Amino acid sequence: MILYLLDLLGVAVFAVSGALAAGRKSLDLLGVAAIAIVTAIGGGTLRDVLLDNPVFWIQNPIYLVVILSSAALTLIYTRFRQPPAKALLIADALGLSFFAISGAQGVEQADLSRIIVVLMGTITGVAGGVIRDVLLAEIPLILRRGNLYATAAIAGIIMYLILQQFGIVRTVAALLGMGTITALRLASIVWGLSLPVFSLQDRQ
Amino acid sequence: MILYLLDLLGVAVFAVSGALAAGRKSLDLLGVAAIAIVTAIGGGTLRDVLLDNPVFWIQNPIYLVVILSSAALTLIYTRFRQPPAKALLIADALGLSFFAISGAQGVEQADLSRIIVVLMGTITGVAGGVIRDVLLAEIPLILRRGNLYATAAIAGIIMYLILQQFGIVRTVAALLGMGTITALRLASIVWGLSLPVFSLQDRQ
Amino acid sequence: MILYLLDLLGVAVFAVSGALAAGRKSLDLLGVAAIAIVTAIGGGTLRDVLLDNPVFWIQNPIYLVVILSSAALTLIYTRFRQPPAKALLIADALGLSFFAISGAQGVEQADLSRIIVVLMGTITGVAGGVIRDVLLAEIPLILRRGNLYATAAIAGIIMYLILQQFGIVRTVAALLGMGTITALRLASIVWGLSLPVFSLQDRQ
Repeated sequence: MILYLLDLLGVAVFAVSGALAAGRKSLDLLGVAAIAIVTAIGGGTLRDVLLDNPVFWIQNPIYLVVILSSAALTLIYTRFRQPPAKALLIADALGLSFFAISGAQGVEQADLSRIIVVLMGTITGVAGGVIRDVLLAEIPLILRRGNLYATAAIAGIIMYLILQQFGIVRTVAALLGMGTITALRLASIVWGLSLPVFSLQDRQ
Repeated sequence: MILYLLDLLGVAVFAVSGALAAGRKSLDLLGVAAIAIVTAIGGGTLRDVLLDNPVFWIQNPIYLVVILSSAALTLIYTRFRQPPAKALLIADALGLSFFAISGAQGVEQADLSRIIVVLMGTITGVAGGVIRDVLLAEIPLILRRGNLYATAAIAGIIMYLILQQFGIVRTVAALLGMGTITALRLASIVWGLSLPVFSLQDRQ
Repeated sequence: MILYLLDLLGVAVFAVSGALAAGRKSLDLLGVAAIAIVTAIGGGTLRDVLLDNPVFWIQNPIYLVVILSSAALTLIYTRFRQPPAKALLIADALGLSFFAISGAQGVEQADLSRIIVVLMGTITGVAGGVIRDVLLAEIPLILRRGNLYATAAIAGIIMYLILQQFGIVRTVAALLGMGTITALRLASIVWGLSLPVFSLQDRQ
């Protein structure tokens, strides 16, 4: 039950981030709704299609209701006030951490290789934002130089898997994995951590 | 039988619109064929993949033959004359209306939520054009400020569902839904109707 | 066994080409890994999803290991030396030829129309590069004016199918099809062959 609420919270946060990104590109209302939907469900949808599972939001349309409500509230809120950047970053980090771990848990049960579990969890957490950026004709944020994002997801999922190997209960391991992701993500923003860049142009 | 012919007509119209878009970007012949195919079958393919149905054109390759023929005729025609913009807009509106309603009908039978039926019909109608624009590295037309497009599809599908609630026969409801989409789309072009835009930049 | 090794070689070559493309865009290490993965498995993944087959690399994670190793070696190698352009072009042509023919073989067994076999083989060979270019916010290379690429794949697959009609053993036909693709691709680079361009702008 708590997991389900966290899941809906993650969807809502990503819908808000999608709506804000759409606003920066001056899309119309339907474009805002479309980008909010894609950002919020893109990762889970790609995971389900790759694994040939039923797509999660088709069976349970409450996800779409939450997304459209979140996008509408974003439109109304930003009409009167600036979006609260700091609160959003924290919420986004929480959304990322929940999606990544819940994505990993879904695959884990299918008894697949560990590397696939890590990859599927990461896809669940970040692919929605990637599709959003592709639709807005930009190089996806997470591929560019920037603070840790997918890296935080990967580290948290690995933490979650290792803790289970050491006999930690699944729920505790999941919470610690989510904490790792949120902490890494926020620490990387505060201290400006990032991965090294690979650039062929610098030396040509 | 009439439905099947309308289906092929919709595919042909979208193939022409894809080929014209490719011509504006100066692609080579294979690029034109690829964009024509993606525009014409992208929406139905995404719908089938999301619902885990067999992809419609894999079972019945006549669709690909129609698309490649339409693209070839477009190349030949535009060598001699300007593309007839008005006729194309009407044909495109008809294609949209048919794809949207037939997409909704396919999902309807799977006994899913109404909101999913509307979304799947809309995806069937518009996703091909979205993928075309993504491949051409542009922000998809339907997300930008412009005349009603996806909005017309959504309104027509809702009309189609409501009419059935009132006891109207399915075929009649489908025709009225298609009429709604075509009329809304064309009216929005004639009178310049559009949805309000959400822009964060205007106020910063 | 030889086929499996060729398959892994194709994956490795495409991973290298993806890593180099990422380097030209100055992505960070994770971006490089992501682009390498997408380039190497995108085509086969799209094919498997469209045909509703299990996705090939989910069952067998050795593919991911090969890709990540290839990307890492690319990073190390280019730190000291220029990437060897000529060797890479030849390797890429071999990768294309193997993916196209093995993609066609997979579909062939499902007893589908010939046009679908050709299309699926071509998708297997080229879609990874298309997704890579979309993520890097460029119009995909194979759609633009340039040397034969998808065209070479199509010609080789048709050759493979025709040879089988004439009673040639499947393995021999596959090798001759692969030879056709590699030869056409390399010849088109050496002599600058390309398809005619369709441009609406030239005459407006």
